[in-house]
Amino acid sequence: MTRRYVVFAPGAFGGREAKTAHGVIGYSSDTVVAVVDPQHAGKRVRDVVPYLDSDAPIVATVRESLRFKPTSLLIGIAPPGGALPPAYRAEIIVALESGLEIVNGLHSFLNDDPEMRALADTHDSRIWDLRTPPAAPLFSGAAYDVTSRIVLMVGSDCAVGKMTAALELTRAAQAAGTAAEFIPTGQTGIAIAGWGTSVDRVIADFASGASEQLVLEGDRRINARGGILFVEGQGGIVHPGYAPVTLALLYGCAPDALVLVHLVTRTKVDGYDIPLPGYRALIRTYEGLCANVKPARVAGIALNTHGLDDAAARAAIAEARAQTGLPCDDLVRFGPDAFYAAIAPQIGKTPVRTDG
Amino acid sequence: MTRRYVVFAPGAFGGREAKTAHGVIGYSSDTVVAVVDPQHAGKRVRDVVPYLDSDAPIVATVRESLRFKPTSLLIGIAPPGGALPPAYRAEIIVALESGLEIVNGLHSFLNDDPEMRALADTHDSRIWDLRTPPAAPLFSGAAYDVTSRIVLMVGSDCAVGKMTAALELTRAAQAAGTAAEFIPTGQTGIAIAGWGTSVDRVIADFASGASEQLVLEGDRRINARGGILFVEGQGGIVHPGYAPVTLALLYGCAPDALVLVHLVTRTKVDGYDIPLPGYRALIRTYEGLCANVKPARVAGIALNTHGLDDAAARAAIAEARAQTGLPCDDLVRFGPDAFYAAIAPQIGKTPVRTDG
Repeated sequence: MTRRYVVFAPGAFGGREAKTAHGVIGYSSDTVVAVVDPQHAGKRVRDVVPYLDSDAPIVATVRESLRFKPTSLLIGIAPPGGALPPAYRAEIIVALESGLEIVNGLHSFLNDDPEMRALADTHDSRIWDLRTPPAAPLFSGAAYDVTSRIVLMVGSDCAVGKMTAALELTRAAQAAGTAAEFIPTGQTGIAIAGWGTSVDRVIADFASGASEQLVLEGDRRINARGGILFVEGQGGIVHPGYAPVTLALLYGCAPDALVLVHLVTRTKVDGYDIPLPGYRALIRTYEGLCANVKPARVAGIALNTHGLDDAAARAAIAEARAQTGLPCDDLVRFGPDAFYAAIAPQIGKTPVRTDG
Repeated sequence: MTRRYVVFAPGAFGGREAKTAHGVIGYSSDTVVAVVDPQHAGKRVRDVVPYLDSDAPIVATVRESLRFKPTSLLIGIAPPGGALPPAYRAEIIVALESGLEIVNGLHSFLNDDPEMRALADTHDSRIWDLRTPPAAPLFSGAAYDVTSRIVLMVGSDCAVGKMTAALELTRAAQAAGTAAEFIPTGQTGIAIAGWGTSVDRVIADFASGASEQLVLEGDRRINARGGILFVEGQGGIVHPGYAPVTLALLYGCAPDALVLVHLVTRTKVDGYDIPLPGYRALIRTYEGLCANVKPARVAGIALNTHGLDDAAARAAIAEARAQTGLPCDDLVRFGPDAFYAAIAPQIGKTPVRTDG
């Protein structure tokens, strides 16, 4: 179906908590007809988030958004822990009573909520809980036999731009005539691509297996020997809470190459008084883990220079390049094509380690 | 309650798949009155697994075991993937109809099985699904403030003896007059200790948080500044399927020191054609990850020399010591006291990393 979204992000649309909203507005092939955020009502999307390509009006309530004839309401916030704040229930109920589909990226599933479930049934609407985990098997090693090349985004931390980097690289590879597929591993990527698995929601023992299933499915989708799968990363290897999911992707996707993603203004692990390692230490950590199982090198660094002016952004990029000798760029600010052209020659199939 | 267990391990009691059975027989304070395994019926436990301290008769069926007046049936096998093989249903049903409590370590929960659940209700018996995950929060950092010292077992691989090492070290520390608590992180440890969380069953995003909750609870249990928590490890950092759980414990438990555990006859990752790194590479990997967040060093190596004679075991221990310069020993074959005495001076509180 083609959706006409109202994006629900009350009190949050301008900030980090609305990253699902921003991702869908920026990258989904569906249309966003309105945003609900009383704090910014009367403005437009690009007044609040200027870097987004699409625009739409911002209104105060779900009821006001109905005149734009939405088909679906996207819960466009991602609070830590992922539970639905009680204050938002009434608004979701308005949407259900108006027959809208609800697209929900929270850890708490609305299909498990008897009142929501009953309302959806009564009004013949649908609840799509993006994070619903599949029945994943254990990691099998089948990912080692995928013929597509697999490129995984790995972050210095969570919420630095890994999904955006994967989407931009997919676009650049396709523009360059290479079969390429974006592999969604989190709720926003799933909302954008229409498939995928929120690996953070899978039982820990099966998180590598779920990651493996995603590259197997991506390989089937591009159906092309020598194509490239660009896998959205999750978390960061030094994040004390999210690193297990990061490692599940690092081992489960069996990447042939990595792209390191960093938000240049981030100096500590998000929410903790723990310093982020420098580029070289991060590269050593990621490559060192891969070397144990299936070697993969960092082919380049995708920098998120959000908040800097162009001169400062160029300086940050030059600094990263000087420290690492790798291709470095901001794929949003300067476009992904030059970066893709620089890393593409480095992306070849690597075999699993079998030497003693 | 004090349990009288019949351990159900059909066709499996002699092998690795029965590690839950062996762990409970070896370390639980409950009594094992019989084992069910038609393949070894007529023998006794120690005929099949000579290194276990306890003994009990082996019978062919659950019905035959009833004359030993069990209170509980332990599903004493751990097949990969954790589902209940259909052939075993009939035997579990006999146990339920006989009023036995069922203690189940499989990933698939018997409380979710309508027939099993109804039988338990009818016969006023109980199903204890050991792996039932708690509603774990995200990792908070509270583990950094625990006053007990935290020692985590880390493995070269899964199923090498991490739980046994933690149990033996707890015993040795207590014998030496130190307050110490075993922290159970998997189904067998939970069956032995009567509490704990099977971290592999927790949703990946919350696996670090669940690990943290375990050390907070352990700290409350020993209620002693300067006591030691010996945490059962899980998986291995180079295991492509289980490493995410390993990392959840490494970050979530915030250890002050590590004990590396290795089965000396293991040369490849269990089930994969991937070589295990040597001692020094493993130590570098584990210590390198900890250094990013909260530094912890490997204090010693607990070697599992099962299958070797005493001379070969001593040679393997000497070799590990020569390679690493660390205290090395087999805590089952030679007892844990000398090893504990050697590592105890190395176990001090370490602070979380806050320098840039």
